[in-house]
Amino acid sequence: MTRYAAIEAGGTKFRVAVTEDREIVADITIPTTTPDETLGASVDFIVSHGPATAAGIACFGPLDLHPDSPTYGSITATPKPDWSQTPVLARVRDELGVPAAIDVDVGGAALGEWKWGAARGLSDFIYLTIGTGIGGGLFIDGKVHHGLGHPEMGHVTLERVPGDEYPGHCPFHDACFEGMAAGPAIEERWGAPGKDLVMRDEVWDLEATYIAQALRSFTYVAAPQRFVIGGGVMQVPGLIERVRLELTKQLAGYATSRIRSGSLDDYVVYPELGQDAGLYGAIALAMEAAANR
Amino acid sequence: MTRYAAIEAGGTKFRVAVTEDREIVADITIPTTTPDETLGASVDFIVSHGPATAAGIACFGPLDLHPDSPTYGSITATPKPDWSQTPVLARVRDELGVPAAIDVDVGGAALGEWKWGAARGLSDFIYLTIGTGIGGGLFIDGKVHHGLGHPEMGHVTLERVPGDEYPGHCPFHDACFEGMAAGPAIEERWGAPGKDLVMRDEVWDLEATYIAQALRSFTYVAAPQRFVIGGGVMQVPGLIERVRLELTKQLAGYATSRIRSGSLDDYVVYPELGQDAGLYGAIALAMEAAANR
Repeated sequence: MTRYAAIEAGGTKFRVAVTEDREIVADITIPTTTPDETLGASVDFIVSHGPATAAGIACFGPLDLHPDSPTYGSITATPKPDWSQTPVLARVRDELGVPAAIDVDVGGAALGEWKWGAARGLSDFIYLTIGTGIGGGLFIDGKVHHGLGHPEMGHVTLERVPGDEYPGHCPFHDACFEGMAAGPAIEERWGAPGKDLVMRDEVWDLEATYIAQALRSFTYVAAPQRFVIGGGVMQVPGLIERVRLELTKQLAGYATSRIRSGSLDDYVVYPELGQDAGLYGAIALAMEAAANR
Repeated sequence: MTRYAAIEAGGTKFRVAVTEDREIVADITIPTTTPDETLGASVDFIVSHGPATAAGIACFGPLDLHPDSPTYGSITATPKPDWSQTPVLARVRDELGVPAAIDVDVGGAALGEWKWGAARGLSDFIYLTIGTGIGGGLFIDGKVHHGLGHPEMGHVTLERVPGDEYPGHCPFHDACFEGMAAGPAIEERWGAPGKDLVMRDEVWDLEATYIAQALRSFTYVAAPQRFVIGGGVMQVPGLIERVRLELTKQLAGYATSRIRSGSLDDYVVYPELGQDAGLYGAIALAMEAAANR
């Protein structure tokens, strides 16, 4: 049995856990204030439970994840006060004195789902979270594909549905996925938050149409073996079924052979780890750090 | 010096070459008629030049490229008469009696550009060809990412430009990349083939807008290190420059850090091997077959 430290570092709160293998034996939630306070309290909590073998961090971004960079594992420029240029990985590693690994939050969640959740046994899949924003990553051969930087899947091009006059919520793009389909777009377009609209079919038909447009593009770019989709918006009853139907319609039979026929029940699924995917991802990152040291 | 056989198997013609290392020492072009005739003539040509060490094939699709499949390397269902279920890889390998490797045509071209062309030294990039159709592939760590099947990048979602009433050329999708921006769409929309429209700015501004919409989505999904874009449509003078400008505008400063600043001259480029990328890709596949036997 090995003891690990796991940190899910979010923009509003940190979840910190000490585990024995993947079993959480102690955990705490700490508000995200300044790096000194929040990282300090995280390290103190871990240290108070005795020595860990390694640490893993699933962290809000943007992060520097270029392997050759001298600031690898640091937050880069963020609008969040005090956090720009914070060397999160280096601080945790040095203050705990153990090997540590870091990835962006969606990367950690994807890793968690791959090791212990809805993507077990797959060589590639796409993880998405649709909530206040839309994040996601293309997971290939055991890690999120970073390419030149972070995937920003929430900003792919969508096609406005005729009659939808809503201008979009994204300051950068006309009709992008996040701008048309994330929580704030739903609330602005319909004048009420999604949770107050659950009985209105037209809201979720439109939402499913936009989500399916994005999944169609992702399918044609990467042909993932599965989509694992979480986040607050996806909690609306019936939405995932609408998305499957709409995606079937939009693919129009023109897709890779293995999804051309049959239902998409196994192609578009919920995360299995739910709200804990990020924390389990951090545990998985800690295990990787231990293995690679 | 090693002798290889390379076949670029296209839907209208085959190019067959015998090489010494990567130098072509003999080549022939054979019309694509039936598998017996065309594959037979290809093999005869190769054999007439003496024994080769291995063969590589960059082939029109759809191909079965699932590693565990008993029909790996066969053409699957194609509208092209006589060619459905043709075991291209098995026939070439067995008739020549040498190790052989196969990939789809864009996969071969991408491999060629990666080994000897515009993508040398990159860990990942996207290869695209924009002509009668639009094909492409996400190239990662030495090979095209296949996922569940072929990438079908030509069918990603685009957003119709206001005022563009052209319904689109794709029988499957409203406003997809190929349906809005491939050669036939240009000709139908404007009533003349692209080569007769080179002086009309509005044609190429619109074309660049649609190409940039697709590149924007690809950037946000995969953050490739570079786009290498060939095909007949891209031969129009000035089009690539328009695409770079329009993509800069559409990314709107919201992109991965390494492309956020500066021009995109190095991010969106032409192939260096031009019309020979597929044939060089087949040579590269032959070298892989020799190395892996």
